[in-house]
Amino acid sequence: MEFDLIGRIRTRCAAHRADVRLGIGDDAALLAPPDGLQIAACADTLVAGVHFPPGTHAADLGWKSLAVNLSDLAAMGATPAWALLALTLPDAQPAFVDAFADGFADLAARHGVALVGGDTTRGPLAVTVTALGFVAPGQALARGGARPGDLVYVTGTLGDAAGGLRCLDRGDAKADMLFQAPGDTRERLLARLNRPEPRIAVGALLRGVASAAIDVSDGLVADLAHVAAASGVGIEIEAGRLPASPALLSLFDADERIALQAAGGDDYELAFTVPPTREAAMLRDLARAGCGATRIGRVTDGTGVRLLDAGGDEMRLARGGWEHFA
Amino acid sequence: MEFDLIGRIRTRCAAHRADVRLGIGDDAALLAPPDGLQIAACADTLVAGVHFPPGTHAADLGWKSLAVNLSDLAAMGATPAWALLALTLPDAQPAFVDAFADGFADLAARHGVALVGGDTTRGPLAVTVTALGFVAPGQALARGGARPGDLVYVTGTLGDAAGGLRCLDRGDAKADMLFQAPGDTRERLLARLNRPEPRIAVGALLRGVASAAIDVSDGLVADLAHVAAASGVGIEIEAGRLPASPALLSLFDADERIALQAAGGDDYELAFTVPPTREAAMLRDLARAGCGATRIGRVTDGTGVRLLDAGGDEMRLARGGWEHFA
Repeated sequence: MEFDLIGRIRTRCAAHRADVRLGIGDDAALLAPPDGLQIAACADTLVAGVHFPPGTHAADLGWKSLAVNLSDLAAMGATPAWALLALTLPDAQPAFVDAFADGFADLAARHGVALVGGDTTRGPLAVTVTALGFVAPGQALARGGARPGDLVYVTGTLGDAAGGLRCLDRGDAKADMLFQAPGDTRERLLARLNRPEPRIAVGALLRGVASAAIDVSDGLVADLAHVAAASGVGIEIEAGRLPASPALLSLFDADERIALQAAGGDDYELAFTVPPTREAAMLRDLARAGCGATRIGRVTDGTGVRLLDAGGDEMRLARGGWEHFA
Repeated sequence: MEFDLIGRIRTRCAAHRADVRLGIGDDAALLAPPDGLQIAACADTLVAGVHFPPGTHAADLGWKSLAVNLSDLAAMGATPAWALLALTLPDAQPAFVDAFADGFADLAARHGVALVGGDTTRGPLAVTVTALGFVAPGQALARGGARPGDLVYVTGTLGDAAGGLRCLDRGDAKADMLFQAPGDTRERLLARLNRPEPRIAVGALLRGVASAAIDVSDGLVADLAHVAAASGVGIEIEAGRLPASPALLSLFDADERIALQAAGGDDYELAFTVPPTREAAMLRDLARAGCGATRIGRVTDGTGVRLLDAGGDEMRLARGGWEHFA
């Protein structure tokens, strides 16, 4: 039965890369890395009820399980190449597997990623994807390179996915209001939750430009805290500068919106630091590529991340971001 | 909290390889593969209650989660190098994580494997490990190269792990007898279940020698069926030739023993095919390296795997091996 499922996945995720010398179906895949490049490797797990609501559509889960990993590669400035998929299912439902594989394949095709192996097992619904990509030596965007005086940027908009998750709640007046939101505002937020877009193109443009980068997965403040710690610096963020989508602005008041933007998880935007001398060129390159980024703060001496209100006073969040085992 | 756990794992699994340019702690690891070699990549998941009994010791689980993946690399003739670990736990128990990491690190150190990244998440207990290794182009041991006339070999002994699992059953007379088995026979079988030894050295010696190879994870007959299918051949196995340990011989009668050997899972021995012209050299090389292998059958025309009794008649097993979603 396992082999049936693997066959279904393989049929749907067929991607042809000349550097895949042996793909799904043997004890291991055989891959030919390009000479002179480094391999960037990461693995992330999504567990039902922890990282996604139990009712999540299988195709969205397939997309997202790859997206969160490609986002990690983007945050390193790496070009994605190969993925391995470990899918654990309570029972063998071909329709679920087909939809999952279609969602996975949809995103994989957009970034030229070949699914080369993995495992299907019986158990509580969970997915672990391992993603492998390439980056030239010395070009990767690590977390430890931020220096006082650098500017802090973030791509796209923040808080949409967390706002979308809020739209799935039930049973209070706010939830009812969100459920009946006008137009497609609710759908726009849910799309950000279910189909995050890894910022591969931006990551590539930031190679040799950004001094540090991270993808926003656990929440902006929590993720920038890793940059601050790895770099031995402090970071100041101006709450008023955090980019918000029209959908988020229309559905949440300022306080709730800022909490979603600063501490909501699942954004999968890139937060990065750049020396002021490189700012103009960076903005020009990103604009040419049709990618947006917003300056949200600066790197300082000291430690930790401070979120400042319009008066320059530090704000405190009820929670510093979604943490595993919180 | 996640970072505490990652720190604990990192401390215990510190392994120094010059080709790990950036290890645990950033968005992705950065690895420098050797020029001219292929990367062998595989990922296997172990789920509590499915792939291991819920009471399995954390250190054994750490060892085994890496071992089953190194076994896949061994079956390709690859030399292991790097691993990523995705560990899902119901709650953050530092003692469990420490013991798990110690078991993982114990095996990793024996094979020079560096843990370079992964994820820790909250959820039902499960582990997915991705293992990466190297093999020269054209040297990997695939499943599809067996030809009629080739001889079928297997390393070590078969059925011990399945016998050990049987020793964990409770509630019938046979189980009580096994539980009270004399000497350390029961412990020897349980060691095979909990601490399988991936046959890396044998896999390396078989490069350019074996025509096909697979590791015995789901059961000998089921696994050889994959070789038969991939190679477009049939395989005949003589039940009387299947290698058995003294512990297995002392605790099970012939019928039960053959079922454990032919269909029990979790052996992690290598089953391989070799042309008769290379048999003598293969045996000499393995003997020099202190590795044992037993001839158990031959490759034929036709399809599928046939298990033959002493009279040459085909035997039927109650089950063809442990299959996922069976």
